[in-house]
Amino acid sequence: MVRTSQKVARAEATTLDKRAWTDAALHTLAENGIDGVRVEILARDLGVTKGSFYWHFSDRGELLDAVLQEWRRRATLSIIDRLERTHEPAEQRLRRLLRLQFESRRAEFGSDVELSIRLWGRRDAHALAVLREVDELRLRYIRGLVEELGVSKGEAAARAILAYSYMRVSRSLIPSDNMALADECERVLLKRV
Amino acid sequence: MVRTSQKVARAEATTLDKRAWTDAALHTLAENGIDGVRVEILARDLGVTKGSFYWHFSDRGELLDAVLQEWRRRATLSIIDRLERTHEPAEQRLRRLLRLQFESRRAEFGSDVELSIRLWGRRDAHALAVLREVDELRLRYIRGLVEELGVSKGEAAARAILAYSYMRVSRSLIPSDNMALADECERVLLKRV
Repeated sequence: MVRTSQKVARAEATTLDKRAWTDAALHTLAENGIDGVRVEILARDLGVTKGSFYWHFSDRGELLDAVLQEWRRRATLSIIDRLERTHEPAEQRLRRLLRLQFESRRAEFGSDVELSIRLWGRRDAHALAVLREVDELRLRYIRGLVEELGVSKGEAAARAILAYSYMRVSRSLIPSDNMALADECERVLLKRV
Repeated sequence: MVRTSQKVARAEATTLDKRAWTDAALHTLAENGIDGVRVEILARDLGVTKGSFYWHFSDRGELLDAVLQEWRRRATLSIIDRLERTHEPAEQRLRRLLRLQFESRRAEFGSDVELSIRLWGRRDAHALAVLREVDELRLRYIRGLVEELGVSKGEAAARAILAYSYMRVSRSLIPSDNMALADECERVLLKRV
């Protein structure tokens, strides 16, 4: 993963921007956890001097905050935005969400980033606050979709938790050659049993 | 966490056994991840010499295997065993499982250990194999309970995945003062809506 951003970044080393640093940090985070995200190592991977980092960030803390905000944008806001722009019925948008973990080529990278952030959140209050906000945003969005299916508010809150729990972990529980099982899970979640 | 095992272990330092090393390793794993589990650091925490480690283990790899086996025993086998000995109806055993994450005082420690093992499993084939076996054991047990409720095999497989996903992550999604929401989730999972 880092190799790709290295290549891209080296080609434009002179104009290396904030985004390239954030991308490289996200990849390192996914692979090595938060302790692996160090300015000198990122600079080496990007083929630039450590000093150029300070054109964009005042310190490592500012980079880590950019990483959290970028993760929040990519893994939540832009997904919701994309779904909303389809103007599809709620059931179809929910189905797309429930399939995301199986179909997106970036799902594995995304789940590595997220696992690293959850681990980081166990000992960092800021990371934990962003995690909680993201969980809250996702749950609220899913709950709204379930309510649109005509389910009572109380049951929708419960179904949203079940749907989101499923989205978080079932990729490792359902073999990729058994999508019939994923279908069945979706039927139960969408109350179509 | 390590402090408690330190105290216990120091009191019986002369008879320090295999179990004390495995316990200390589990606590360090929960707090610092697999890279934190180092023989010299455990020895220091336990107040014994590094050499005494080799009375019980041939190397760090053997300790790590003992850690995985102990986790498998505590977090899966002994829970199933305890449930089975109640001879309660399947629905009651399922409810107990679904509440475990909220009620057990050890749930937080258990979830820290498990998160660390899942992270470890991303780059260690043996840890991954034990994780997969544990997931399989738990899913099979839950599926059996759901089938006892009188649900078809296909639907039981799906409900088991939803119940297990819920057990894995919902503790962070349901505030401890909103057990009515947990009740509602259980009702949906147990098909009592």
